[in-house]
Amino acid sequence: MKKGCSYGTHRVIEPKGTLPQPAQKIDNTMEIYDNEILIDVQTLNIDSASFTQIKEQANGDVEKIKDIMMDIVKTRGKHQNPVTGSGGMLIGTVEKIGPALEGKTDLKVGDKIATLVSLSLTPLRIDEILEVRKNIDQVDIKGKAILFESGIYAVIPDDIPENLALSVLDVAGAPAQTAKLVKPGDTVVVIGGAGKSGMLCLYEAKKRAGVTGTVICLGHSEKSIERAKKADLADHYIVADATNAVEVMEKVKEVTEGDMADITINCVNVPNTEMASILATKDDGMVYFFSMATSFTKAALGAEGVGKDINMIIGNGYTKGHAKISLQIMRENETLRKIYEELYA
Amino acid sequence: MKKGCSYGTHRVIEPKGTLPQPAQKIDNTMEIYDNEILIDVQTLNIDSASFTQIKEQANGDVEKIKDIMMDIVKTRGKHQNPVTGSGGMLIGTVEKIGPALEGKTDLKVGDKIATLVSLSLTPLRIDEILEVRKNIDQVDIKGKAILFESGIYAVIPDDIPENLALSVLDVAGAPAQTAKLVKPGDTVVVIGGAGKSGMLCLYEAKKRAGVTGTVICLGHSEKSIERAKKADLADHYIVADATNAVEVMEKVKEVTEGDMADITINCVNVPNTEMASILATKDDGMVYFFSMATSFTKAALGAEGVGKDINMIIGNGYTKGHAKISLQIMRENETLRKIYEELYA
Ligand SMILES: NC(=O)c1ccc[n+]([C@@H]2O[C@H](COP(=O)([O-])OP(=O)(O)OC[C@H]3O[C@@H](n4cnc5c(N)ncnc54)[C@H](OP(=O)(O)O)[C@@H]3O)[C@@H](O)[C@H]2O)c1
Ligand SMILES: NC(=O)c1ccc[n+]([C@@H]2O[C@H](COP(=O)([O-])OP(=O)(O)OC[C@H]3O[C@@H](n4cnc5c(N)ncnc54)[C@H](OP(=O)(O)O)[C@@H]3O)[C@@H](O)[C@H]2O)c1
Repeated sequence: MKKGCSYGTHRVIEPKGTLPQPAQKIDNTMEIYDNEILIDVQTLNIDSASFTQIKEQANGDVEKIKDIMMDIVKTRGKHQNPVTGSGGMLIGTVEKIGPALEGKTDLKVGDKIATLVSLSLTPLRIDEILEVRKNIDQVDIKGKAILFESGIYAVIPDDIPENLALSVLDVAGAPAQTAKLVKPGDTVVVIGGAGKSGMLCLYEAKKRAGVTGTVICLGHSEKSIERAKKADLADHYIVADATNAVEVMEKVKEVTEGDMADITINCVNVPNTEMASILATKDDGMVYFFSMATSFTKAALGAEGVGKDINMIIGNGYTKGHAKISLQIMRENETLRKIYEELYA
Repeated sequence: MKKGCSYGTHRVIEPKGTLPQPAQKIDNTMEIYDNEILIDVQTLNIDSASFTQIKEQANGDVEKIKDIMMDIVKTRGKHQNPVTGSGGMLIGTVEKIGPALEGKTDLKVGDKIATLVSLSLTPLRIDEILEVRKNIDQVDIKGKAILFESGIYAVIPDDIPENLALSVLDVAGAPAQTAKLVKPGDTVVVIGGAGKSGMLCLYEAKKRAGVTGTVICLGHSEKSIERAKKADLADHYIVADATNAVEVMEKVKEVTEGDMADITINCVNVPNTEMASILATKDDGMVYFFSMATSFTKAALGAEGVGKDINMIIGNGYTKGHAKISLQIMRENETLRKIYEELYA
């Protein structure tokens, strides 16, 4: 059996020297290396940006969607949309575990798992596309995939429906990082706090900041704010446009009586909200950017431009225990679980 | 006298609700608000990307360069290049200090200062352009500028030549952040370590990591590495291409005997080096991205893709004491000072 690199570089066909994600083409033969896991795939959960593009290209025709998907995997050895560059995640059952992983992994053959690394780097073979569920970006297939040694995953728990688990796992990094960063007594602002990742962050923030802390939910629409209020996720609620930095600063100033936030968590899905996040935060405070619409230069130059000495963190999608922490929220909070079931599952 | 906002929003003409930097047009009348500082400007140091664009547009003609610059300031009230969006910095003499700043600032009328906030947000009036020094991006003018209450600056010291001070202050955030982040015993890798910001970071890293720490300089050309060696800035030197993540990982693994870096500092000026920075770093370690060529999404998805639980920081150009820390290096290290005088002053 061949020995593999933990990052899967042994599967890169071209260009050499890159990692599987930026690679143009990777090897998707399903004979495993000594440190790989073979997965019998059940469902692909295509990244929303990618699936929207594929649906458009296919004019909504299901057979054409299937053709495009088969073609992507044939060309690249993985389901990485050539237009958007993005992937998605998958659910499947562990079929084989490389001998080099013995004692290193707690997985066993037969476990149902969700991969938490992107499909854009996952070796995949599709034998047949069984069903395309167009409005929730999910595709059932017959096929196999490989998980690298460094690849992260979550075992799907028995007590949480698969679809609910999937949607929570999609944003698992955000609440887990919140849990790590927030300290008792902190004032925390979550911008985009009534969205999918935002509500999980509010919940964790409130738990960690405790009775001496203050948690503030900032959202765009009255409607989403009402939802967050129903679940009693924050001490204060602000309706504001996060692209208007001055408006956000004034409103945060008001509810914090001039103190501003120790930690601001940005969970929006629109660009140009860096400055609002910076101005909502006190000197020596911290901004955690989870939003993928964040611009590195706007954040770096923005903070300098107003002379703010704050720590700005790039939202790593992974942190230890992120799946466990996010799924646990669905067990702890009945109201939140109902909201997520209605909205996302 | 009118009362101003500390971020200068009172000067924004359009669009309303934005800050002076993203604004299209700001008010550059030179009557100060109560919390502003009036500067008699001597030299503009135009951002290198901006000045390159202006020179091209003018076909290198000095009179045309002057016209373009006058036009920018007339249209926007600030020297923000409409193509690149960037500004630069300026040197001048404090002429007036708003009464609301009394007791708050240590500046006095007559001080020679460099502004450390971008020209892209600084109200500026140019009366006359005296001299254009095309090859070092500097332009002497007769004119005035406004520093906002939140605006950062440095008093030019007597013992360091103006040009040397300017080039060190340009990258002051990097060594100052290094000084804050590196702890005794740390293993530190500086990628792009033989460049302008890189060498200052190496110097601070060595000072803070101390005798129990290890400092590693990674550069691209033998020539620049020789320069860093001459100044004895690191314990190990690596020649590698930072866009090749696997090469960088292997070489860092070798010199650290498999341990990898506690802190990786990215000071390169080319794109696609996020993955090398991530793989050079140990789990629970930290990457500090100073390079403006950093992509937020490449960093966020890259770390997730290899399951690395690391803290990734956006290089804020400002941190308290950054000017003092960086200028002090020029006093402490004779060899480094000579190198900077030859290269940049
Ligand atoms: N770093 C990572 O690894 C990672 C992983 C997954 C997702 N993400 C990113 O995380 C972000 C959030 O994802 P999500 O699933 O939580 O999205 P979501 O459910 O759509 O939530 C986005 C929220 O942003 C709010 N919002 C939109 N425009 C706003 C504005 N101008 N002012 C204030 N609030 C505004 C929305 O408020 P209303 O509902 O009131 O309109 C909504 O609640 C996305 O950018 C996504 O790319 C990152
Ligand atoms: N965050 C902020 O506020 C802020 C402020 C100012 C500047 N910056 C940014 O900081 C960065 C560095 O600025 P600087 O003035 O220090 O630049 P610099 O002096 O030009 O240094 C860049 C260094 O990167 C190295 N490099 C280039 N390509 C490389 C590769 N493929 N592999 C390894 N090393 C490579 C170069 O090595 P060789 O010399 O061997 O080619 C050089 O030493 C720039 O991106 C700039 O935009 C940020």
